Amino acid sequence: MMREVAVIGYGMSKFGRRDDSTLMDMLREASTVAIKTAGAEKGDIDTLYVASMLSGELSKQTAIGTALADELSLLPVPADRIENGPASGASAVKQAVLAVGSEVYDLALVVGGEKMRHAPSNEVAELLASMTHPTAEYVQGVTLPSLAAMFAMLYMQRYGVERKHLSLIAIKNHRNALKNPHAHLHRPLTLEGIYSLPEAEVNNPVVSEPLRLFDCCPITDGAASVLLCPAERANEFTDEPVTIAGFGQATDSLALQDRDDPTVLQAVRKSSDKAFQMAGVTPKDIDFAELHDAFTILEIAESEDAGFFEKGTAHKAVEEGVTELDGDLPINTSGGLKARGHPVGATGVAQIVELAQQLRGEAEERQVADAEYGYSCNFGGFGNNVLSFVLRRG
Amino acid sequence: MMREVAVIGYGMSKFGRRDDSTLMDMLREASTVAIKTAGAEKGDIDTLYVASMLSGELSKQTAIGTALADELSLLPVPADRIENGPASGASAVKQAVLAVGSEVYDLALVVGGEKMRHAPSNEVAELLASMTHPTAEYVQGVTLPSLAAMFAMLYMQRYGVERKHLSLIAIKNHRNALKNPHAHLHRPLTLEGIYSLPEAEVNNPVVSEPLRLFDCCPITDGAASVLLCPAERANEFTDEPVTIAGFGQATDSLALQDRDDPTVLQAVRKSSDKAFQMAGVTPKDIDFAELHDAFTILEIAESEDAGFFEKGTAHKAVEEGVTELDGDLPINTSGGLKARGHPVGATGVAQIVELAQQLRGEAEERQVADAEYGYSCNFGGFGNNVLSFVLRRG
Repeated sequence: MMREVAVIGYGMSKFGRRDDSTLMDMLREASTVAIKTAGAEKGDIDTLYVASMLSGELSKQTAIGTALADELSLLPVPADRIENGPASGASAVKQAVLAVGSEVYDLALVVGGEKMRHAPSNEVAELLASMTHPTAEYVQGVTLPSLAAMFAMLYMQRYGVERKHLSLIAIKNHRNALKNPHAHLHRPLTLEGIYSLPEAEVNNPVVSEPLRLFDCCPITDGAASVLLCPAERANEFTDEPVTIAGFGQATDSLALQDRDDPTVLQAVRKSSDKAFQMAGVTPKDIDFAELHDAFTILEIAESEDAGFFEKGTAHKAVEEGVTELDGDLPINTSGGLKARGHPVGATGVAQIVELAQQLRGEAEERQVADAEYGYSCNFGGFGNNVLSFVLRRG
Repeated sequence: MMREVAVIGYGMSKFGRRDDSTLMDMLREASTVAIKTAGAEKGDIDTLYVASMLSGELSKQTAIGTALADELSLLPVPADRIENGPASGASAVKQAVLAVGSEVYDLALVVGGEKMRHAPSNEVAELLASMTHPTAEYVQGVTLPSLAAMFAMLYMQRYGVERKHLSLIAIKNHRNALKNPHAHLHRPLTLEGIYSLPEAEVNNPVVSEPLRLFDCCPITDGAASVLLCPAERANEFTDEPVTIAGFGQATDSLALQDRDDPTVLQAVRKSSDKAFQMAGVTPKDIDFAELHDAFTILEIAESEDAGFFEKGTAHKAVEEGVTELDGDLPINTSGGLKARGHPVGATGVAQIVELAQQLRGEAEERQVADAEYGYSCNFGGFGNNVLSFVLRRG
């Protein structure tokens, strides 16, 4: 049995368009806050993990773990970069959990970040597409929005999801983001404005049919950080520790077309099963969840495959307000990728930040009452490498 | 205490110019051999680590861990890419050791690879330079050969190393590579040909004074793989297990100019100290070593800072033949980066392959007699992120 690991500190940079800052600036910004909220000193830190998908491609910086260790004056701590596409952040958290769990290291700092907005959006779209199947998808011109659109179309045909449900998710997540000072988008949306009114066609244009602008997360700059330590040492640093009760990671066919049923996210199912099993809980025990809504349809599909709703029914739960901040299972209280933003390598870490913040009762205006268990799902590739975490208060 | 971890299988692709193969082809080639030599089945494997520095930049493939999991039919195993510049390979081995050591996973497959030769060499030089300090070095046009040249110059001035000593290292490593069928360069060198004869000026031209062509490793395509398991389970797979007795990783100032004494490789000292301490041995117990001779001067400096020779004396040991295959401490029996080649992300894994092969007595013509302990040093950046391993027979 691995020893238990706790989250003792968390930090976020402002997410958004950060022309003022380099990737390194944002990594420093987030990690400095994580160390401070933990009441830790730099000298306490034993190892460093940096998550970034495109630091080499977009910031011309490789081996960025070393650079951050130097920048933060953490030398000579071990430092590595972890890359797993859009799930780089959760993969880095997992590596840090294993590092602490192995008893080789005690305090592990994890920082995920991406700087993307300075690049032309077609260049970013192509770089993101480099996570798809090299011959079946990438060289054919497939992009992530086009995969998500095919997925959404199948989902609509099979389960009766309508465009309106997708809009409701965007509206909810934008509403939650208004209560998150670190979120990228602070802009209220209405069903009229993006769906019902004639002008909605203009306000919310097609990106890839049936997905519209407000079904897609923005391109965002930002960083997020957590500081981990052995659970048995957490009270040295905080009265409000949060335990990593369970985690799981699973891969699936690289190409969407190779899956028996493309609407079933096997890697979400398998990774969440593992996380729940390790935590000794079921989906019913979860009080709130951060899901990977890079596209609105994904929040629906993940909430089903993680076991919160029967397959094909989550859109009804959305309509009934179950996933609202005051509903039975609030989803994406942070604003999600849709509105908090999706600096790719930061996202999986930012999800853990939101879980820790909620479980410590420090989420202020967006606080979920009496939350004991939180769940996160970081979705790599088009669902071909997924990590799930269950965090527990105390 | 972490549970002990063993190497039960190893594999290498042919290193060299591999126009016939993609990066994925070579990763598959190496890992298939590692699984086979372990007598393991794909279904036994619990997790996968892929090391590559430039898979995104040079092969337009991100999240390559997922792609390899699918390619090898290992789904749904967890898979991640680890990037730490030229030490990506050893960092991936370390992550896998922690994963197995944590008791969360049993069999961990590690594969490192790089495909570089298809790109113009100035493009490769620039991509490699992206591991240097972004403002103090990279934007000033610093390259790795230029840093190594400054380092060599200081070393020559202070310790009396001569060009001849550097040539002797190249000659030794080329000689060893002749006995390694996977090596990139199968080309005997002589002191006359690259140093003494008038024609040597032409044969061995200056790259960056005082370093010549044959002081620099080639640009190489290739992949290397090891399969790890808990030491207590090793005998299920092999009669010749090899134990990872110790490991250490340390960072140092990103920029060479920020170091108090640039000729001292602090990260080599600190990482090797940790590895020796964990293994309960001293440098005197080591029977052979794989060092990171991206430039010949580095073999000299690392062999000193790892504790095998007093500072400033290793060049004399080279001259006396101590580090030859039949010497007291054979160094780079594989041919080293100089002649086996340096597919960046593969190198740290290839060093562990050589250690395992030697310790199992399977190194054929280049076998070191009665080897019980082997040491490896994988040098990231310009010595700013170094990993050391000590492996033990049995």
